[in-house]
Amino acid sequence: MSDNLFASDVYQQRLNRTCALLAERGLGAAIFGTGADLQYLIGSEVSSHERLTALVVNASGKVTLVLPAVERGDLAACAIGELNAEVVMWEDGEDAHEIVAKLVAGAEVLGIGASLTADHLIALQDLTGAKTVLANTVLKELFMRKDAAEVEQLRLAGAAIDRVHDRVPAMLRAGRTEREVADEISAAIIDEGHVAVDFVIVGSAENGANPHHDFSDRVIEDGDIVVVDIGGTLPVGYHSDCTRTYVVGKPSEKATAAWAALRKAQEAAVAAVRPGVTAAEIDGIARQHLTDAGYGECFIHRTGHGIGLSTHEEPFIMAANDLPLEPGMAFSVEPGVYLPGEFGMRLEDIIVVTDEGGESVNHGPHELIPAQSGSAQPGATQAS
Amino acid sequence: MSDNLFASDVYQQRLNRTCALLAERGLGAAIFGTGADLQYLIGSEVSSHERLTALVVNASGKVTLVLPAVERGDLAACAIGELNAEVVMWEDGEDAHEIVAKLVAGAEVLGIGASLTADHLIALQDLTGAKTVLANTVLKELFMRKDAAEVEQLRLAGAAIDRVHDRVPAMLRAGRTEREVADEISAAIIDEGHVAVDFVIVGSAENGANPHHDFSDRVIEDGDIVVVDIGGTLPVGYHSDCTRTYVVGKPSEKATAAWAALRKAQEAAVAAVRPGVTAAEIDGIARQHLTDAGYGECFIHRTGHGIGLSTHEEPFIMAANDLPLEPGMAFSVEPGVYLPGEFGMRLEDIIVVTDEGGESVNHGPHELIPAQSGSAQPGATQAS
Repeated sequence: MSDNLFASDVYQQRLNRTCALLAERGLGAAIFGTGADLQYLIGSEVSSHERLTALVVNASGKVTLVLPAVERGDLAACAIGELNAEVVMWEDGEDAHEIVAKLVAGAEVLGIGASLTADHLIALQDLTGAKTVLANTVLKELFMRKDAAEVEQLRLAGAAIDRVHDRVPAMLRAGRTEREVADEISAAIIDEGHVAVDFVIVGSAENGANPHHDFSDRVIEDGDIVVVDIGGTLPVGYHSDCTRTYVVGKPSEKATAAWAALRKAQEAAVAAVRPGVTAAEIDGIARQHLTDAGYGECFIHRTGHGIGLSTHEEPFIMAANDLPLEPGMAFSVEPGVYLPGEFGMRLEDIIVVTDEGGESVNHGPHELIPAQSGSAQPGATQAS
Repeated sequence: MSDNLFASDVYQQRLNRTCALLAERGLGAAIFGTGADLQYLIGSEVSSHERLTALVVNASGKVTLVLPAVERGDLAACAIGELNAEVVMWEDGEDAHEIVAKLVAGAEVLGIGASLTADHLIALQDLTGAKTVLANTVLKELFMRKDAAEVEQLRLAGAAIDRVHDRVPAMLRAGRTEREVADEISAAIIDEGHVAVDFVIVGSAENGANPHHDFSDRVIEDGDIVVVDIGGTLPVGYHSDCTRTYVVGKPSEKATAAWAALRKAQEAAVAAVRPGVTAAEIDGIARQHLTDAGYGECFIHRTGHGIGLSTHEEPFIMAANDLPLEPGMAFSVEPGVYLPGEFGMRLEDIIVVTDEGGESVNHGPHELIPAQSGSAQPGATQAS
């Protein structure tokens, strides 16, 4: 068994649960494409692009992996061989959509995994004539509620990215570029136990005011506020994602005041997490705190997103989402304050809903974190 | 204007052509997701995951980019600001699917870009009630036939990857691992003018017999056959993809004979390319040559795939595809011979269909290419 997989009974239980839920909800079958769904259900990381790879799960209990023959190398890398499932390999020139359509024949309603692309979905809709619904919504207990093995992975991921943030103060100083810092952070993400770097945001001063800035050749200056939002992938496929905001030298009064409001908003939203509260309510709490403090217009994105085998997945913590939280749901709480042309700041922890409240998998400081040295070192930069 | 974009009139012409074809085919509108379609139509490389980004093209001539507000940074990076088009930005909490549904209201048939994922497509189908068809198939003249600017990009890509292959003989020798060679090739791909490494396959001896092997820690030995299949992305987004097969030291008689058959099959298939011949016929020619030489069972994949802003796109050169070739179509011709437990070999060029025949954008040798030195250097490996 590979280090990248759970024990096979974890996957078997998930498949059994899928079948049971399909039957309960009146869906004849579900079809999942590559990506997080396949990784969750059978531990497969195969990515076959335009060639159809699909896991077909029938309410009756039959499970079939339909795989392009050229991808047969994935069979040993995933758990399928140890599961109660069949494998159908198709050769180039065969119509894989017809193979899948036959497997779901008779189903009037089909669940469809979110990642399946239009080239496959439209062909399957045309061939089957079935009504299609999003599997991840209909089977949300399955996909949104993390089991114990998954929560443990999220804790490991949280600890790993916390260790990276612990090293950031020593990397940040005036005279270095965002890119230099980002490169060092990328190395640290791998060094601290991730197998892949998912993203690195180093947004200094006005660059931090764009929430989707990654990093640039801008030279960090004394007094800069620096948003550092980073994440990676653990061997089993679960993701980390954590934002801290740093200051090089002494923060302005404006920055200090904004941080106090932001920290209060984030901590209030986290404190409100418990089963039964809706995703929209969590978003509303963070937003109301910032609005009350005069920063309502400066918080220009949703409060958070689910995380697991995808970095962004349901539940989304935003105004329109009336989903009541349930134990095992895991998501970011990451309000921000963005002042165009000046600076941005964001504070983000990953929270898992427990029976009584919420558990943060991140444990780093909630201060505006000082860089270890604020002294300019212009020589190093001019040489580069 | 960025180096990553064509002049804006290139995109405007493509949009105009899309509108005209939609009207001609009776489609009220088309909806394109992120990826190659958006890059082709407006030069956008935005990738917004679960947040909907969609380019809505109405047959009437109206073009609208629907973009999450957090992605506003992409507006300057793509050509949209210089085109006859509107931009609608939506904030988290708004329903982007409703925005798109309103834009296509009244359309009974909608074209859908291949990359749009089920989470968005099913929501749009439910909201609009329209029939959906694959845009890339209905508008195949647009998406499969490259214009002059695109063909020039494919020529540049071919020349760049040819220069990388020119450097491979000096990298390959007994005692090195596939990974060491792959790392050097990755650096050379960037060095020769690509902005990204798409894939690097270094399949020595039995590893080469798996067409989707990438590379491993296997130590290359004297006498090994080594498949090297590599590709990268040019600044404007067009892809290179070229396979050559190398030999370290002296090839076996078995390998020499297999190569002679493979080379003949590939060259015969390329020589048959011209308008009117079908994709399936090109595949059949390569397959028949290998079957006649006794290697029919050893050629386990399709003969090729289209290439452009995607590495794999239509037209697919395979048995089931009765599509007649047209000038401007561009695709790989890459038969292979795979002997499990022994070795694999593949020969691949990218061919553009011209008015009279086919033009290869790759010009490297078609021999079984000797590595510069077959001498073992075990010391270097034992130290690693």
